Parts: sequence; structure tokens; C-alpha cells
Amino acid sequence: MPISSASTDAYRGVDDLRPAVEAGLIAACNFGDGCPTRLADAMRYAVLAPGKRLRPLLVLMAAEACGGMLGNLTDSAIAEVMPGAVAVEMIHAYSLIHDDLPAMDDDDLRRGRPTVHIEFDEAIAILAGDALQAEAFAQIANHVRDPQRAIEATRILAKAAGAAHLVGGQADDLMAETDPMGVKGRTVLGSSPEGGESSAALLASLQSIHRRKTGALFSASLDLGAVLSGASEEARASLGRYAEHLGLAFQVTDDNLDYTADTDTLGKRAGKDADRGKLTYPGLLGIEASREKARELIEASKREALFFADSAERLLWLADYVLERTN
Amino acid sequence: MPISSASTDAYRGVDDLRPAVEAGLIAACNFGDGCPTRLADAMRYAVLAPGKRLRPLLVLMAAEACGGMLGNLTDSAIAEVMPGAVAVEMIHAYSLIHDDLPAMDDDDLRRGRPTVHIEFDEAIAILAGDALQAEAFAQIANHVRDPQRAIEATRILAKAAGAAHLVGGQADDLMAETDPMGVKGRTVLGSSPEGGESSAALLASLQSIHRRKTGALFSASLDLGAVLSGASEEARASLGRYAEHLGLAFQVTDDNLDYTADTDTLGKRAGKDADRGKLTYPGLLGIEASREKARELIEASKREALFFADSAERLLWLADYVLERTN
Repeated sequence: MPISSASTDAYRGVDDLRPAVEAGLIAACNFGDGCPTRLADAMRYAVLAPGKRLRPLLVLMAAEACGGMLGNLTDSAIAEVMPGAVAVEMIHAYSLIHDDLPAMDDDDLRRGRPTVHIEFDEAIAILAGDALQAEAFAQIANHVRDPQRAIEATRILAKAAGAAHLVGGQADDLMAETDPMGVKGRTVLGSSPEGGESSAALLASLQSIHRRKTGALFSASLDLGAVLSGASEEARASLGRYAEHLGLAFQVTDDNLDYTADTDTLGKRAGKDADRGKLTYPGLLGIEASREKARELIEASKREALFFADSAERLLWLADYVLERTN
Repeated sequence: MPISSASTDAYRGVDDLRPAVEAGLIAACNFGDGCPTRLADAMRYAVLAPGKRLRPLLVLMAAEACGGMLGNLTDSAIAEVMPGAVAVEMIHAYSLIHDDLPAMDDDDLRRGRPTVHIEFDEAIAILAGDALQAEAFAQIANHVRDPQRAIEATRILAKAAGAAHLVGGQADDLMAETDPMGVKGRTVLGSSPEGGESSAALLASLQSIHRRKTGALFSASLDLGAVLSGASEEARASLGRYAEHLGLAFQVTDDNLDYTADTDTLGKRAGKDADRGKLTYPGLLGIEASREKARELIEASKREALFFADSAERLLWLADYVLERTN
């Protein structure tokens, strides 16, 4: 039976948390005297683009849940985790800039606006991404007061952004696109996608890609919120499992949206994944089974959120939101 | 009068320090189960390429000078600073991969071997660079034991690698190439490079680029060695000034080498900078004045090294080496 969300509608949203995130991002987009204007412009264009801010919001939501402060995050509690919130958004923004490059996914539209290499140029796009990654680590090193928490946060972020997670997932995703037989050097596709075992292997491979590409940074966001707010190990572990399911569900719904939505609703060119034969959930399972997959993952994530009892409401809402979103 | 180097020849070299650096780099090039083989291969290809290892050696040399351990760095003293040594080499390797990309400097040869995007492909080159930057921060976060030193090291590395330094310098370098009138949005070139004031402005601009592009990581390397080995503030400051002069000298001699050397000696295509009208010291000052500039910078760096008295010998040798190197 589906877990019902908040008993009231008070935390069916994150609008009360948004202003702090936006203010934090704007304040962080000051890159120093030696930063060329055009580079800073490109970095701001990417970071301050209209966006869901899902990852920084996750940082705040984790702090809220772990601190038992539902709807009552204090300014000092926000300040404590804000370097983590800004850092994950910078990592996310950099990864989008690089993913959109001609040598990668070759997208010219992102959130309804020209991508960075279209609005600026390819060199600036590469460099803006590079600089945003460094700035993400600088945010934590410069603005987290407790050294022990700062270094744990750096560890979390570096792992999630690294070769075995964010970047590795993207690399496998690209390689699967051009060579679905050879993801990670293993044969994942047998005779046809319809065949039982080969289809299962392909699904496992797709899941592994999504878990690293999207899930790792989702999990890192919640873990950063927990660590920077001084949460218990139990709270970190529950959030970790919540995040794992949620992150994968987010990617499945993303695939489903691309499969069914039109370009206007989506803010990027719809159906592009299918056009180029990219490995997707609806492509592999069919759209109905793919939607069911998303529902299952969301239920699993909500079960983990219950650890936080009365403070779980916004985590439950988010799970519903990920399932129901249209863009 | 030039400062004479070591009274003995014992520290006219770094061969005794190399094995530790190579072992540290090899040990660090293990990127975890989730890292696709091809991505790991590209990262190793870049990091373990034959190279001068100048930056990691600087980390060790700083620890040696600050610890008064000339020629006697203990295994535990090496282990203490090795995460910093590995991290700077990873940042350096990533920046070379990205600088060589078609949208950037478009080089197909590096240290006599095909560049990463030639040997692998462009997408893997972008991703290998991205992952190496994350791994650099992971090295420090995971392997420096003292949290206070770890976070200071992260701060140093993130600043040097960031928008106002390494990346900003490269961005200005690229923009100067295509638009020498508009570096940093200011007009730096008047009527001709021969004109007094405009030539001075162009030189200032070139110096600013090199200071950020090369100097920042040189300085960071020495500072990392100092911080990770627990050096005094005075020692850090002296090393900082030594590094600033040395880093700029390195870039001047690099320009001079490109201007005069042939492709075989250099391991990259000689004269390429001049071909594309890139801003260089010999191009701006003439080769003789540019060589004199390098000599002056080296003397200035050697004066700072004298702070370390008996432990300065290897720092003095390095200064001479930078001046005299042929590749």
C-alpha cells in the first residue's frame, strides 16, 4: 500500500527554502579579481540559470530532517549547510555544461535556454565547467567552520563527483550509446533486447549508469546536509537509502518524460534520447513498466524516510514530486 | 651578483626523490570499481605519462626544506605530504588534457605522445580531466590525517585550480590569442607592440596570465608541502615568494624554448605559439631580453630560498635547472 505523504499540506513544497538557496548561490558566484569577466559570466549563466535546485534543496531538507526542524530551519542551521548546498549545485551545473558539449551529448538547449557552449563558446564552456568544479571544493574548504565536518564533506563530494560515480556514469552512458555491447568492457546485450537474460543484464547496466550519474549526487546532497548539520550515523544511513531509490526514480521519470513529453513542456528537445538509440528505461521496458518501476522506487524511498518520523513530511512530499513532475 | 648554488653537487638533482613520487602516483591511479576501464586508462595515460613531475617534486622539496631534512626525508615525512604531491600532479594532468582539446589549444602531441583526445577520443578526454580534478581533492580528503591540514590543503588547491588562477589564466590566454585588444575586457594593446606604454600593458597582461596559469600551481605545490609538513608561517611566506618568481621564470623559459628549440628536443611541435600569433615573452621582448628576464626572475627566486639556509640547496638547484633546461 502506498505510503501517504504529509497529513497536512504544509510541507508539500519547498518554496520556503528556496530564497535561502538562491541567495546562497548568488553570494557564491563571486569568483575573485583574477577571474576573466567572460568566464565569470559563463559560470553565473550556468549556476544561476532557472532550475529546480533539487540538489541544494536536498542539502537543506536533510539538515531539516536530521535536526528535527521541519519548517523551522534557523538561519544559523542554514548557514552551516549552505556551503554544501552551493557546492553540489556547482558540481551539477559543471556536469551539465560538459555533458552538453558537442563531443558529449551535443545539446544546444538546456532548461529552455541556449547551452553554455552555444551562448558563449566551446572553450569557455569547458573552462567554466572546470572552474565550477574547483569552486565547489573551495566553497566547502572556505566556508565550513568545523575542520572535521569540512573534510568529511569534501570526501563525500569528491567521491560523488569522481571517476567511479558522476563522471564514470557519464562515460558509460556515452559508451553504451555508441556501443551497447561493450559497457564497462563486458557484453551486456545478448541477441536482442527482448531476450530474458540479456535484457536483465542491459537493465542492470542501465541502472548502474543511472545510479552513478544521477544517484551519486542525490545521495551526496542528502549526506552533505546530514554531515554538515552534525547528524547521527543512523540518520545518515537512512537518508542514504532514501536517496538511492529517489535518485534512480528521478532518472527513470526523466527517461519517461523524454519519451512522452513535448519540447515546450520539457525545456529541452523531447525524444532526443530515443532518436539516437540511447539506453532508456521506457525504451527497454516499455513506457507502462517504466512508470511502474518509478512508482516502486518512490515507495521504497518513502519507507526509508519514515525513520525521521514527524520530520519526514517534506522528504515524503519530494518523493511524490519526483514521481509526478512534468519537467 | 648571481647567487651560487650548492657548495657540493649532492643536491643538484631530484633523482633521489623521484621513486617516491612515481610510486605515489601509481598507487593513486586506482579509481574504484565503478570507474569504466576506458576512463581509467585515459586517466592513467595522462597522469603516468613520462614527465618532469616538477609539481609533486616541489611538494617534497618544500617538506624537505621546511623540515630541515635535506637529503633525509623520512618515509613518514614523505607519506605526510604525498597526497598533496599526487593531487597537484592530477590537477596538472587534467589541465593539460583540457588545454590540448580541439576547442582549446588543439594540440595532438604532448611529451612526444599523442594527446588524450587523439589516443582515446574527445569525450573521454573531457571526462578524464573532470574525473582527475575530483580525484585530486579526494586524495587530500582521504589521505591527509590531520583535518586542519587537510582542509588548508584543500583551500590551497581549490584556489590555485580555480576561476581566478589556473582556469582564469587559461581563459585569458585563449582570449588574448583571438583578441589581444580585449584581455580581461581592458585594452592592453595600443597602436603597436613597439609602443612604450602599450607594450608595458601587454607585458603586464602576459605576466598576469602566466602568473595565474603556471605560477599558481607552482606556488600551491610548495605551499602544500609546507602546510602538510606543518611548516611555520614565515617558511610558507618565503616559499611563496620563491615560487612566484620561479613559476613565472618557468613560463618565460617555456616561451623561449618554443621560440628556439626544434620539435624533437621539445617533445611537442616547436614554433606553434609563434605560428598562431600567441602572446609570448620572446615575441614581445625579443629573445635576448626574454632570456635576461628569465635570469632576473631566477635570481629573485634564489634570494628567497636563502631563508632556508643549509636546507636551501635543492631549491637553489631547481632555480638553475628551470633556467637551463632544454625541454
